Amino acid sequence: MPETNGHRFDPGFTQSVVDAMGPNTPERLRFIMSRLIPHIHDFAREVELTVDEWMAGVKLINWAGQMSDERRNEGQLVCDVIGLESLVDEITYKKASEAADVATQSAILGPFFQEDNKLSENGASIYLTEAKGAEVVYMYGRVTDAQTKAPLANATIDVWQASTNGLYQQQDKDQAQHNLRGKFKTDADGNYAFYTIRPTPYPVPFDGPAGKLLKLMDRHPYRPAHIHLIVLKDGYKPITTQIFDKGSDYLTNDSVFAVKDSLVVEFVPRKDDAKAKLELRYDIHMGGAASSKGGETASAPALINGNH
Amino acid sequence: MPETNGHRFDPGFTQSVVDAMGPNTPERLRFIMSRLIPHIHDFAREVELTVDEWMAGVKLINWAGQMSDERRNEGQLVCDVIGLESLVDEITYKKASEAADVATQSAILGPFFQEDNKLSENGASIYLTEAKGAEVVYMYGRVTDAQTKAPLANATIDVWQASTNGLYQQQDKDQAQHNLRGKFKTDADGNYAFYTIRPTPYPVPFDGPAGKLLKLMDRHPYRPAHIHLIVLKDGYKPITTQIFDKGSDYLTNDSVFAVKDSLVVEFVPRKDDAKAKLELRYDIHMGGAASSKGGETASAPALINGNH
Repeated sequence: MPETNGHRFDPGFTQSVVDAMGPNTPERLRFIMSRLIPHIHDFAREVELTVDEWMAGVKLINWAGQMSDERRNEGQLVCDVIGLESLVDEITYKKASEAADVATQSAILGPFFQEDNKLSENGASIYLTEAKGAEVVYMYGRVTDAQTKAPLANATIDVWQASTNGLYQQQDKDQAQHNLRGKFKTDADGNYAFYTIRPTPYPVPFDGPAGKLLKLMDRHPYRPAHIHLIVLKDGYKPITTQIFDKGSDYLTNDSVFAVKDSLVVEFVPRKDDAKAKLELRYDIHMGGAASSKGGETASAPALINGNH
Repeated sequence: MPETNGHRFDPGFTQSVVDAMGPNTPERLRFIMSRLIPHIHDFAREVELTVDEWMAGVKLINWAGQMSDERRNEGQLVCDVIGLESLVDEITYKKASEAADVATQSAILGPFFQEDNKLSENGASIYLTEAKGAEVVYMYGRVTDAQTKAPLANATIDVWQASTNGLYQQQDKDQAQHNLRGKFKTDADGNYAFYTIRPTPYPVPFDGPAGKLLKLMDRHPYRPAHIHLIVLKDGYKPITTQIFDKGSDYLTNDSVFAVKDSLVVEFVPRKDDAKAKLELRYDIHMGGAASSKGGETASAPALINGNH
């Protein structure tokens, strides 16, 4: 760390803080803190952070907590706008893919996932509340074993997305309960299908600390149009991901840095369906060999090959 | 930054997040964020931070905000236990002392300072609520100009400390309003004086995220016995500091790393005073040349030479 050399502050201070950890500190935590503390201190020394500036940061962090509740996670959003969630997602996926026998890690749900999605029959619609400018989409596909290509029956697909006003159901009292979020199970042939709407770009919440940070950094708050998915099947690595509309703005400058090329999909015209003018086939290939514990999910976008 | 080399994650990601800042980002903020983002990202890559671990951190940060209010600043306390407040205090003081003509920065008040300290006559007591094991102290001294040694009349001294149960007044409903906190003005000769009690060590609040972090790091939460002071005088650099009892435990392992040798003072026996068995003379020397704006304070412990 060349940054720690050459500055004019107490040269032993950072090590003394690290060394304060006692013998019973768990080894993983000791390693994490023994890197976090020097990085935070080096940052403060490099920019010669003043008490005023530090206190502005403390206020921002406290504000994030105060705005957070079961419907909103502003601490997460602050991390998102500096790319941290996207980075730990990359790290976690890489670690999991390199060590197929490790216990499956939990992974990003995003701040708008809700546990109580309602299980519906395939072919049902999650578009429950009329939305201005909405284009209805028939989304369908097959879940298969990535190695054997065998269809996977009884896999669960959780799906959620914002409405055309940029709000998720829990943010918007005018949307019916369960609007644009739902849960489906694949049939004996691994197929799933439901009606929803084509997603649209929306800004991340701009009224809190993450929004303040974006404004200060002269950045826009928009995310490209996307649909969230979690796919679970016993014996397979859980998949948490987002798929992005190829036709959307902000694909190259997502405010939370989540877009990956392999996750961009194309909505195409649908024929002979009075209910939907567009369709999206999205097949999902699950990696095996993971011990899937209930409720845990791992981020594995590269295991998905969609948009056929 | 050698840390960014040699890892197996997207090598361009961090720079792309930094580069997302727009042209209207204030230059100081651009500099701060252009160092903060790489340090946070390097930290995550070096320890290969997982989504689970990151989310544990997000929860801790949100929890800090949720516990914070006008009586408590848990975000600050989390920073304190990793030495950050002490470090930015050192940085701020060093910058101020190197550039005497810069505008005076605000500085640490600590989480327990309250604005509404009551102005009392010299010689009054701030020990209002009987405390178990308390030793009454007569604290007095003179405020002078550090260069000319001239006494400074009408300087304001804010003082606050915990009671022997380890609680500040606002934390403890059994203490009278304004117990162990007060405000005094120096007389024509620069003198101040008041009765208080000898401070005792106490643990920082252990029921929140800072306490959780301390427990995880196998560290104790204790602070050495100390009294907080803010000294203000028009035309002089404000002083915010803490003085520590030479006889206290935890001088070498303060849980928030605030002790400096020059701030350690000795309480000595007092004669011929029925009200106090101990006394502490503490003289304060203020540096001039600063434009002191109302309410702003700067940390300047080295400007104090106490314990005569």
